Amino acid sequence: MGVPIMRSLLICFCFVFISFANLLYAAEQTPEPSHGIAYPVGWQNWGTIAVSHRIDNNTIRVVLGNDVAIKAARNGITNLWPDGAILGKVVWKETKLENWKEAIVPDKLVHAEFMFKDSKKYSQSYGWGWARWVGLEQKPFNLGTQVCTGCHTPVKNRDWVFTEPAIFPK
Amino acid sequence: MGVPIMRSLLICFCFVFISFANLLYAAEQTPEPSHGIAYPVGWQNWGTIAVSHRIDNNTIRVVLGNDVAIKAARNGITNLWPDGAILGKVVWKETKLENWKEAIVPDKLVHAEFMFKDSKKYSQSYGWGWARWVGLEQKPFNLGTQVCTGCHTPVKNRDWVFTEPAIFPK
Repeated sequence: MGVPIMRSLLICFCFVFISFANLLYAAEQTPEPSHGIAYPVGWQNWGTIAVSHRIDNNTIRVVLGNDVAIKAARNGITNLWPDGAILGKVVWKETKLENWKEAIVPDKLVHAEFMFKDSKKYSQSYGWGWARWVGLEQKPFNLGTQVCTGCHTPVKNRDWVFTEPAIFPK
Repeated sequence: MGVPIMRSLLICFCFVFISFANLLYAAEQTPEPSHGIAYPVGWQNWGTIAVSHRIDNNTIRVVLGNDVAIKAARNGITNLWPDGAILGKVVWKETKLENWKEAIVPDKLVHAEFMFKDSKKYSQSYGWGWARWVGLEQKPFNLGTQVCTGCHTPVKNRDWVFTEPAIFPK
């Protein structure tokens, strides 16, 4: 009886070890917080609010939103945006489409930036949490929220948001 | 007893009538088919595959995908795209962002165009169903698939798709 019990224990131990290793691996895969804000896992599949092409720094962008933000954008509730809304701006360097040179399209990923609306939690930074993860490796940006708010000051009367939601059919 | 029964019947009738009217209204709201293809209800919340700015006709676009297409795009399975994939290209006239003039952003909606991959069903049109709905009212385009395929001929070796999926972090 000793050998089967030992074998069962060994198999059991292996399962526990694999599960634990998987958990560690998953935790390692999620980028570290930016400005104390946790990485918004799954944003890659969020809906679209707008797009833009910045000709001053040769980047092309999509502005995404979580469910709260998408609903608000589609219904014109953008000044103020509701608590719980998260806006994500994904920025790529521009290039030309190989088969249609007159089309400017994404090249390398620059960064993904996020604004997290919570009027109470982030009352010290105009109602938003500001975060950025840089490059494909999504390295957290931690040089201070004032880098973000400084640039967004021209739109302080638009709840600090540059984006005008694109018009979608109902 | 007659009056309560009559009242119940009347209430019941009202419910049936309202439900039926709602159904009719919903059917009326869904745009008619384009090239015999049913309108892909809910595409407004699909994930993003790429963006582009066409400087030859001053439009800015987002390319969206249903779940099958998003999964394929993220995993580089784009030549051939898998059956069941639907690509949606949403096209807006361009304008400048009011608070950042160097940003080209969406103005009026031009149309939403779709490619439906089904290698058997659409074997006569290179494995894709081609459809377009025009303007905010999403009026179906029915001038013939050859209008679409004619323009897409330069990319017949890329499974007829111009779009190169943007690079997203895992």
